[in-house]
Amino acid sequence: MIQAEVINTGSELLLGLVQNTHLTWLAGQLAPLGVTITRQVCVPDGPEIRNALAEALQRADIVFCTGGLGPTTDDISREATAELLNLPLQLDEDVLKTIQDIFAHRHLLLTANNRRQAMVPQGAHVLANACGTAPGLYFPPPLLESYHSGHLFLLPGPPRELYPMFEAAVSPILQTSLPPKEDRDCRIYRCTGLGESLLENQIGFQIEARGDINVGYCARPSEVDFRLMGPKAALDEVEPLIRASVGEWIYSRGETLEQTVVNLLKKNHATLAIAESCTGGALASRITDVPGASEVFLAGLTTYANSAKQAFLHVPAELLEKYGAVSEPVATAMAEGARLAAGSALALSTTGIAGPNGGTDSKPVGTIYIGLAVKGVPTIVNPHFFPGDRLTFKQRAVTAALDLLRRHLEGLPLVSGSGTPPGSRTQRAR
Amino acid sequence: MIQAEVINTGSELLLGLVQNTHLTWLAGQLAPLGVTITRQVCVPDGPEIRNALAEALQRADIVFCTGGLGPTTDDISREATAELLNLPLQLDEDVLKTIQDIFAHRHLLLTANNRRQAMVPQGAHVLANACGTAPGLYFPPPLLESYHSGHLFLLPGPPRELYPMFEAAVSPILQTSLPPKEDRDCRIYRCTGLGESLLENQIGFQIEARGDINVGYCARPSEVDFRLMGPKAALDEVEPLIRASVGEWIYSRGETLEQTVVNLLKKNHATLAIAESCTGGALASRITDVPGASEVFLAGLTTYANSAKQAFLHVPAELLEKYGAVSEPVATAMAEGARLAAGSALALSTTGIAGPNGGTDSKPVGTIYIGLAVKGVPTIVNPHFFPGDRLTFKQRAVTAALDLLRRHLEGLPLVSGSGTPPGSRTQRAR
Repeated sequence: MIQAEVINTGSELLLGLVQNTHLTWLAGQLAPLGVTITRQVCVPDGPEIRNALAEALQRADIVFCTGGLGPTTDDISREATAELLNLPLQLDEDVLKTIQDIFAHRHLLLTANNRRQAMVPQGAHVLANACGTAPGLYFPPPLLESYHSGHLFLLPGPPRELYPMFEAAVSPILQTSLPPKEDRDCRIYRCTGLGESLLENQIGFQIEARGDINVGYCARPSEVDFRLMGPKAALDEVEPLIRASVGEWIYSRGETLEQTVVNLLKKNHATLAIAESCTGGALASRITDVPGASEVFLAGLTTYANSAKQAFLHVPAELLEKYGAVSEPVATAMAEGARLAAGSALALSTTGIAGPNGGTDSKPVGTIYIGLAVKGVPTIVNPHFFPGDRLTFKQRAVTAALDLLRRHLEGLPLVSGSGTPPGSRTQRAR
Repeated sequence: MIQAEVINTGSELLLGLVQNTHLTWLAGQLAPLGVTITRQVCVPDGPEIRNALAEALQRADIVFCTGGLGPTTDDISREATAELLNLPLQLDEDVLKTIQDIFAHRHLLLTANNRRQAMVPQGAHVLANACGTAPGLYFPPPLLESYHSGHLFLLPGPPRELYPMFEAAVSPILQTSLPPKEDRDCRIYRCTGLGESLLENQIGFQIEARGDINVGYCARPSEVDFRLMGPKAALDEVEPLIRASVGEWIYSRGETLEQTVVNLLKKNHATLAIAESCTGGALASRITDVPGASEVFLAGLTTYANSAKQAFLHVPAELLEKYGAVSEPVATAMAEGARLAAGSALALSTTGIAGPNGGTDSKPVGTIYIGLAVKGVPTIVNPHFFPGDRLTFKQRAVTAALDLLRRHLEGLPLVSGSGTPPGSRTQRAR
C-alpha cells in the first residue's frame, strides 16, 4: 500500500471560514492509483508549515501540501520547503514571463510580491497553473534523499486551480513513477435495516478473523456502509458469505438508496406517487434528488392538515375520526388514495409523529406507519418507531419508506423497520 | 489566546467517503468563547489515535477528539485515551442502564460490543448523548497532569450527536473553566439574496477599516453568515450602519430562514400551501423541518408530471401547451391553484429545470419561476437563474422561495433573486 499524507495550510480553514474539501477530492483521485491517504493535517499560514512538512516527509511515501503559494506575505509554503530541503531559491524566467502575461492580459499592475511566485527551489519541477498565477512545485526523489518520502508536491489551495493542475500534471507524474498497483481493492456494501453492531455480529467478526481483510463501518441514521479492504481474491471469497448472511439488507455497492429505487422503478416500468404527512415532503425530495426521477415519479402529496388528506387523497373523515391520522387504516387510505389520484402503479405513504410535540402515551413521538399500495394486491403497512429529534426522525422514516419500496421491487420479504433485528420480522396486510 | 487542537478519527474521512465538517462547525462554536483552533489532524481508526493525542496534549490548551466512540472494534478512542493516560476502564452502571433503555425503547437487541460503550476511564466525566448510544468523555485537569493541556474531550463523530452534546455539555464546561472573557462578543447576521463580495463592498470593508472588529464571512448556497467579533461597544456602534446598508437581506441573528418564515406566518395568523415542480418536495420539507409547522402549513403538492399539475392544481392544459411547464403563467396558475385547493391564505409555487438534462437554448438548466399567491392581490412571479448541479439548484430555489415569502410577510420589496445586486430589482405581477 502506498501511503500519502496531506498538509492543508491556511488560517481561513482553522477559523472555520472555508470548508476544507481537499481531503475528499484528493482521496477520490488517489484511490485508483493505489495510493491511500493515512493522515491529513491542517496548519495555519506560518512557521508550523515547516514542522508539518518535516514530520510528513519522515512517514509517508508521498506528501501533498496545499495552499500558501499566493503572493501575499502570509503565503510561505515555497520558502519553508526550500529552507527545509536546503535548496536555494532561483528566479525562473519562464514562470515570470507567464505571470507577466497574465497580468498584462487582465490590465493589472505586477507588484514586487507577485515576483515571489516566480522563485523556484533549485531542482524542483514547475507545474503550470492553467487557472491562476501560482505555479505548483514537484520535488522528485533526488531532492528528498534524507527523508522517507519519494515525492513532494506543493499545490495551490483554491479548488478551481488545484483540480486542473492535479489532473494535468500531478496524476501523470504519479502514474509513471509509482510501482504497478497491487492486486488489492476496497469494496463498500451499503446497508439499511440493520445496525452496525448487528452487522458486525452477523458477518463482520467472521471476516475480521481471517486476518487478511480490513473491516470498517460508517453509520448514518438507519444506514451503514460496510467497508472491506484487502486482496481482491480474498474479497471475492467473502462476497458469497456476505450475500448469504446480510444480502437482503444491502441495497447497493455504491449508489444511494434513492438512486437504487429510481433505477428499480425504471427497470420495472413502474410509476410512483407519494402521500406524506409526518415526513413533510422529505420523501418526495429524496426521490427527486435523482436525475431523471421525472420518468417514474408522478406526484407527491404532502397532506399535513387532515382537511388536505380528505381533499387530495380522499381519506374518509370517519377513518380520521375513529383511528386518528397516525394509524394503520389512515396509512392504507393515504397510499391507496395517492395511487388512484395520481394514476400510478405504486404509491408510498407516511403518517406519524415527528415531535417534539404531539405525542401521547399510546402513540409517542417517533411512532410512524408506512404504507405501500400496489395495483391489484392488498396494501401493506409497516409500523416503525423512530424516537429522537425531528430531523433524524424524518430521515429515518424516509429511508424506511424507500427500503420498503426497494424490497417490494426486488421481491424480498417486507421487513418492518430499520433497526428491527433479523429474525423478528413483522408484516401486516389489510 | 486560548489554543485548541482538533483530532478527527475515522478511516471514512481519509478514504474520502465522508466530508469532514467538524472543523468549520467547531471553529464557529469556539470563537465566541475566545478559543482559537491552531491545528487539526485526521487519523485513521487505529493506533495512530494514541500518537495524535499524545502530540496534541503536549501543545494545545484544550484538545477535542471526535469519532471512534462507537460499538464496533474499529472504534478505539476510549481505549487509546485510557491507555495513554494510565486510567483503568470501569463499567459505568448508569451509562449501561441508559444504553439498555435506549435499546429497549427501540426494541433492539443489546450485543456484547454495545457494552463497551459503557466503559469509562477512571476519573473521566461522562457527557450524556441525547441522540445516540455513545456517551462523550471529559478529562479534567487532574487527569492530564503530565501534559500541557488542561482539558480533553472525546466526542462522537456524527454531527447530529456531536452538535447537541457540544451545546449541552461541552460549552458549559468551557464557560465555567476558562478565564472570564473580555467584554467582547461575536455577532452573526444571517443573510440571503446578496453574495459575500457584495456584502463586503456594501458594509464589510467599512467595518474592517475601523480596526477593532474582526470581520468574517461564511457562505453557503444563496446564504451568507456575516460574522463580527470585537468589543461589545464597537459592535453596538456598527449595528445601525449594518441595518441601514443591508438590513433587508438579513433574515435573522441566529435562527434558520425556515424558522423565521414559520414564525412570521404564526405572527400573521396566515396559513400556507405549496405547489412544487422542480424543487420536488424540498420546499415543503424545509418548512416541515420546523417544529410546530403544522400550525400554519396545510399542504404541499409536488406535481412533477404535467397530469398532476392539472389534476391537483387545476393548471389549464392550454397554459401548459402554450407556454410550457416552466413559465411565468404556469408558476402563477400553480400558486393560485394550490391556494384555492388547500384553502390557505398564501401559496408558493416553483417550476424550473433542475438538470442535468431537460434544458433548452431559451430555457437552460437553472431556469426557475417562483410564484406567490396572496388572497385578494395579484399573484407575483419572480424569475431566477441558478445554474449548477441538481442538488444546489434545489437548495437555492427553496431558499429563494422562502425569502420571497419572508419579504412579503415583513412588508419588504420583493427582490428577484439571490445574487441579484442591490439596485437592480425586478418585480413582476400579473
